[in-house]
Amino acid sequence: MRETYHEELASISDGLVEMANLVGSAIGLATTALLDADLQLAQSVISADEKVDDLQRDLENRAITVLARQQPVATDLRLVVTSLRMSADLERSGDLAQHVAKLARMRYPDRAVPRDLRRTVLEMGQLSQRLMAQAAEVILTQDVDAALQLEKDDDRMDELHRTIFQHLMDDQWQHGVETAVDVTLVGRYYERFADHAVSVAQRVVYLVTGEHADELIPDTPA
Amino acid sequence: MRETYHEELASISDGLVEMANLVGSAIGLATTALLDADLQLAQSVISADEKVDDLQRDLENRAITVLARQQPVATDLRLVVTSLRMSADLERSGDLAQHVAKLARMRYPDRAVPRDLRRTVLEMGQLSQRLMAQAAEVILTQDVDAALQLEKDDDRMDELHRTIFQHLMDDQWQHGVETAVDVTLVGRYYERFADHAVSVAQRVVYLVTGEHADELIPDTPA
Repeated sequence: MRETYHEELASISDGLVEMANLVGSAIGLATTALLDADLQLAQSVISADEKVDDLQRDLENRAITVLARQQPVATDLRLVVTSLRMSADLERSGDLAQHVAKLARMRYPDRAVPRDLRRTVLEMGQLSQRLMAQAAEVILTQDVDAALQLEKDDDRMDELHRTIFQHLMDDQWQHGVETAVDVTLVGRYYERFADHAVSVAQRVVYLVTGEHADELIPDTPA
Repeated sequence: MRETYHEELASISDGLVEMANLVGSAIGLATTALLDADLQLAQSVISADEKVDDLQRDLENRAITVLARQQPVATDLRLVVTSLRMSADLERSGDLAQHVAKLARMRYPDRAVPRDLRRTVLEMGQLSQRLMAQAAEVILTQDVDAALQLEKDDDRMDELHRTIFQHLMDDQWQHGVETAVDVTLVGRYYERFADHAVSVAQRVVYLVTGEHADELIPDTPA
């Protein structure tokens, strides 16, 4: 039965990778829907999130089945427990992509994002999608260096988030309070999405090395 | 060894209740710090979150130890797995309380919340604290009715959140964009905090009944 057992473990990893791919695509599509005020696209992102939720439930059930039937220990046990955490990160990322799409729908036929922030939001969307693709790869390869790199790449998200705040706090802001509220929330959604991608990668680091990611990144010299 | 096993399971529940109590207090204190621009209080909430993070790590390790040593099945297994999910909810709630406190600190010596929204934000803070206290009780008692009640009580949070948005979208809004951004984020933090309290309760429902909470609440008549 050893093979079935390893197949079961592998299918949990596969499920995580599939979830990561789905939510990565979702954030990309949601960004397009937001920037182009594309109602149909927004709607399809909103509906598609159900698939992610189903995958998570399925994955949770499979993890519990493996725990009950195979009673894994040591690394395998840690893998199953960590996968539960990762699937929660990914499920939440799906929600955040859905939030972006819902904002697009709410403001339709208007655009929620003003022109002078379009480029910044586009980059946030693309970066989110890229970080999630990296996270998916890290789940597959268990490559610790790639996982730590992801954390550094997330610094760019913080810069973009600061750019948004600079626009908002600028005395020249001419788009009114409603748009300020929308842009604030959008910035937060992308930031949290990226956090979850980083968190997935960090859990892989912990799984492989037994150490938390922040212990492996040397402090940058002052 | 049966007793040790049950003691271990009970200690996981106790850890969850302690986490819920800590984050419940944290959101209450953070709200006071926010409304009174109390820097010292804000600072203490920010520092105290480390305790919550430690508890979560501790709880996760204990859960893994129980899984490895006792290899629980059926309800016990579900309890351990669910507790991992609940501890993640509670850890995140702690972060959100910390975010509220950080906003208080960032705006000090000014107040982030304008006077005409003070009462609404106070109620959001108190409701958050109450919902988390209810969640702690539900973990202890496994009372399904109380868990479902919590979900209904959360409706009030949605109303309060709508009140905030109405203020923000009002043409009379005179507090500028910075305050609009602050209030938007504050509203989101409380809403998410309440979501996590509800989520904890829902997981208890699932644990006890095997059914998801939304299947147990009849639709309200139109």
